Amino acid sequence: MKPRLFTPGPTPVPESATLRMAKPIIHHRTPEFQNVLRDVASGLQYLFCTSQPVLTITASGTGAMEAALVNILSPGDEILYVNGGRFGERWGAIARAYGVAAHEVTVPWGEAVTIEQIMAALAAHPTATALCLTHSETSTGVFTDVRAIAEAVRPSFGGLIAVDGITAVGAHELRFDDWDIDVVVTGSQKGLMIPPGLAFIALSARAWDACRRSALPKFYFDLLEAREAYERNDTPWTPAITLVCGLAETLRMIREEGIEAVWQRHALLAAALRAGVSALGLQPYGSPPSHAITAIALPARGDEFMTLLKDRYHVTVAAGQDELKGRIFRVAHLGYYDEADMLAVLYCIERALADVGHDHAPGAGLAAARLALQEPIRVP
Amino acid sequence: MKPRLFTPGPTPVPESATLRMAKPIIHHRTPEFQNVLRDVASGLQYLFCTSQPVLTITASGTGAMEAALVNILSPGDEILYVNGGRFGERWGAIARAYGVAAHEVTVPWGEAVTIEQIMAALAAHPTATALCLTHSETSTGVFTDVRAIAEAVRPSFGGLIAVDGITAVGAHELRFDDWDIDVVVTGSQKGLMIPPGLAFIALSARAWDACRRSALPKFYFDLLEAREAYERNDTPWTPAITLVCGLAETLRMIREEGIEAVWQRHALLAAALRAGVSALGLQPYGSPPSHAITAIALPARGDEFMTLLKDRYHVTVAAGQDELKGRIFRVAHLGYYDEADMLAVLYCIERALADVGHDHAPGAGLAAARLALQEPIRVP
Repeated sequence: MKPRLFTPGPTPVPESATLRMAKPIIHHRTPEFQNVLRDVASGLQYLFCTSQPVLTITASGTGAMEAALVNILSPGDEILYVNGGRFGERWGAIARAYGVAAHEVTVPWGEAVTIEQIMAALAAHPTATALCLTHSETSTGVFTDVRAIAEAVRPSFGGLIAVDGITAVGAHELRFDDWDIDVVVTGSQKGLMIPPGLAFIALSARAWDACRRSALPKFYFDLLEAREAYERNDTPWTPAITLVCGLAETLRMIREEGIEAVWQRHALLAAALRAGVSALGLQPYGSPPSHAITAIALPARGDEFMTLLKDRYHVTVAAGQDELKGRIFRVAHLGYYDEADMLAVLYCIERALADVGHDHAPGAGLAAARLALQEPIRVP
Repeated sequence: MKPRLFTPGPTPVPESATLRMAKPIIHHRTPEFQNVLRDVASGLQYLFCTSQPVLTITASGTGAMEAALVNILSPGDEILYVNGGRFGERWGAIARAYGVAAHEVTVPWGEAVTIEQIMAALAAHPTATALCLTHSETSTGVFTDVRAIAEAVRPSFGGLIAVDGITAVGAHELRFDDWDIDVVVTGSQKGLMIPPGLAFIALSARAWDACRRSALPKFYFDLLEAREAYERNDTPWTPAITLVCGLAETLRMIREEGIEAVWQRHALLAAALRAGVSALGLQPYGSPPSHAITAIALPARGDEFMTLLKDRYHVTVAAGQDELKGRIFRVAHLGYYDEADMLAVLYCIERALADVGHDHAPGAGLAAARLALQEPIRVP
């Protein structure tokens, strides 16, 4: 089998983006690169459905989460964050590293936070200045309905709503302006289909006001500096030039497909994969499921199954992390994937299952996926 | 003319590194990528002449400077830094952003700090815990003799010596362990010959001790976390995978050429270029000159000259920055350059000079460079 990558970052890079990144490097303070930055700025606004600037920083997604907090917070602020997995937890860890009190809404892994839990936590911590959410929790494959939460809390909550959209942006509907949220961050190696090294951050007018008041220390991640440079079609520090050039290409692809069609494609692939693994007798893990990544309970002889998937069928998926280590595996369908890719991964999963003596009807997964792919799902 | 890049970052990327980066992306938590990280770790130690770990972070060189300071300093610490250009100045700006007092040794642009100035400043600020230097000041093309300064101050100075080696590493002799210095940072798009997006940092045992005591806030740039991951052949956050793969290739090239030969080549190219432009009647700016970049006073009709160089001869050089804007231009010979590249840029400079009516003997620059290239310079 050919090697195939189904991890939630990095995700496969389209050939046209690879070729674009392989062109001779250009200097970043040139009209040529300013044109690239202009395309990227407009493409990111289209992706985020916003008229606010979406800033590009050279760092991983975690860097963008830190940039968000150190720019919108000040000493004495408190945040409320949802910990339903490894990445939700990170909001709290970053805040605490800067001496900001962080109140946790603990959600069992595999479940999504409810509006009631959020409302109760806000009532218990009325001085919280930011509510930090995870749109798609990569460690569990669980989706959080950020739109519904924002709608519910906005009438009574005067603080900022910050969203880790790292595996959600490009896979799930996101309307930054319409939803009246304040911060969304994402990374390049996810729905954006380029290698890791860049991260993106959008801030609302309210969040920009908070930046102007913020008294936490920062330099490289200073978003007011980044915005000032952005207004001149520039970046404050040397950016990861080749990745930015590749991004211009993948953003062009997203615009060509249409953002709603991109969301629909992710919903369709996720549904097909879930139908397929369920028909093979595997149990999807976590609910409601993300459209970006499907977590699946490991079958019996799980370690052997994972080894075969990688070594015999050349499929790279993600293992479970922390408390889910040895309990689940995770298949991403985030970014540059189509319907046939889901059949390929289902085929390899089925072969590896057969190899470890798992009981199932040959082809059952493929047939179920085929049925699920019958009609494109309409989103929203 | 073919387009040619002579900027001090990005610098040209070798074709073999480009091809390596264009291979299908691999996941970073795999044995394949661990092999790459192992190669990179050993190649960076070879480059820095150190047995200490050299950490790779996904950020620009400025990010690594910030990482250095926020990890080795604590509130109440004071630093001493040399400002002889835009990048020296940055040490002070970063320290102040974190509330750390920063005492400046001001040096006129175009000159290097002297040992006497450093000793006097240390005497004036005996409580300084770190001395921050710039090995090659990119904005002026001036070289600072870090080795001599370290040797002079070490007997009396108990603090840390931190070196911005961003345009120096790979161009100038650097023996991290032998020189008994504490921090060196550099970036990927310089002597390391890959695109921007990665930065590197080496710390001495003394600096690691300071990290363990440090009480400045950090998360993404936490070097103790990075080191813990390094010991497991991992990175704390998703790294810029493709750039790391390209780096494995350029580090292989450096080792194949031999680090002393790499330093010698840079010294030779710098000498040839200086000889060439001098023979054309241009005035090299700044002293002593860096081997990474040659700053040159602009001729009469300088703006026109710069435009012709770019638009007619397709040579991208760097303009002067801040107070040197409109006064100098800067030609880099840092990284993937050879003797013929110096002839190419001298030819284009001469043609553009002729176009603006500059008086010189045709071919004088080429002939002078040819003479300078007669015998390889021995370094050290």
